[in-house]
Amino acid sequence: MKLYDGGRAPNPRRVRVFLAEKGISVPLEQVDLGKLAHKAPAYAAVNPLQRVPALELDDGTIITESIAICRYFEMLHPEPPLFGVGPKDAAIVEMWQRRVELHLLFPVSHVFRNSHPAMAAMEVPQVPAWAEANKPRIAEFLDVLDTQLKDNRYVAGDRYSVADITGLCSVDFMKPAKLSVPDNLAHIKRWHAEVSARPSAQA
Amino acid sequence: MKLYDGGRAPNPRRVRVFLAEKGISVPLEQVDLGKLAHKAPAYAAVNPLQRVPALELDDGTIITESIAICRYFEMLHPEPPLFGVGPKDAAIVEMWQRRVELHLLFPVSHVFRNSHPAMAAMEVPQVPAWAEANKPRIAEFLDVLDTQLKDNRYVAGDRYSVADITGLCSVDFMKPAKLSVPDNLAHIKRWHAEVSARPSAQA
Repeated sequence: MKLYDGGRAPNPRRVRVFLAEKGISVPLEQVDLGKLAHKAPAYAAVNPLQRVPALELDDGTIITESIAICRYFEMLHPEPPLFGVGPKDAAIVEMWQRRVELHLLFPVSHVFRNSHPAMAAMEVPQVPAWAEANKPRIAEFLDVLDTQLKDNRYVAGDRYSVADITGLCSVDFMKPAKLSVPDNLAHIKRWHAEVSARPSAQA
Repeated sequence: MKLYDGGRAPNPRRVRVFLAEKGISVPLEQVDLGKLAHKAPAYAAVNPLQRVPALELDDGTIITESIAICRYFEMLHPEPPLFGVGPKDAAIVEMWQRRVELHLLFPVSHVFRNSHPAMAAMEVPQVPAWAEANKPRIAEFLDVLDTQLKDNRYVAGDRYSVADITGLCSVDFMKPAKLSVPDNLAHIKRWHAEVSARPSAQA
């Protein structure tokens, strides 16, 4: 088994943090996104969608999509549970994981890819107006997230979960996108400091 | 229990098709998207993100996000399995569900929302250049999907799954977005005819 990794990009980081929380070690093979190695034929043979991460199983099966990879490890190593326990809790975790992904990670990614000069070769064409259109949506979602974290220690409730991992990687990805969490959103700040202090955040 | 539904929109349809495949009946409450009822205070109290569908459990818990709702029912009613069986198969189903969602459903939605005159009040501002930027990406993914369906009866392999439901709703959503599957992609055409003929497709 090996994991095709992509350094600082948020999706590969989600999987590394998840594995660190599980205490699982998987051999990594770096794909140099800066050199567009994910678009080269060697990697396109691994993932025709030319994105990292990708997990190669011992039988040669390739699993792509960060959350699919994480859930695979959750099924093999259920402890500690990071996708919830029981139907209702699991649904709440998945709901929040997806809310954070769809309304924070992806919009932040749209801003980054459509406005950062370093992305000009990767995002063709860049659409600056689309970057701008996402900014108020990010602000709206941060308000919803702050309200959730007012009453909950973690994004999906009392237990640290994959929703926190997506949240951590999303908030940290705001920096290269030249975005930041407003200072008045104290509950996000409290939560971000707490999840950033976990050893897994260094993965 | 009741399901807040949204008529012809692709996400509510995903859940209805899923429930039909499971043979589960849930009372529906219509949210009139055409009248922006999902943005009114009554529905914002159900889902602060102002999107359908949403599932209200008997204890008042609200589950949003189509796939979180589907997985909740999968856990309550495992047969027939629509999220795969066992870690590897489940990972492959989740991978393909997400691939179709991220690289077809969402880009088609971006085209629709940023180019269709009927969406001018809902997508503010519309960014026509972003609609255009998504079109070649949709074409690229359709090629990948056609290759997958050359060797597989269904999107994620031999068994009909939630990946087919997302695929069906995505391809059918291409029509209002004024997009179509190119005629040379015969494997997608074969698969689409097959999944459209299932009774669940009428849900």
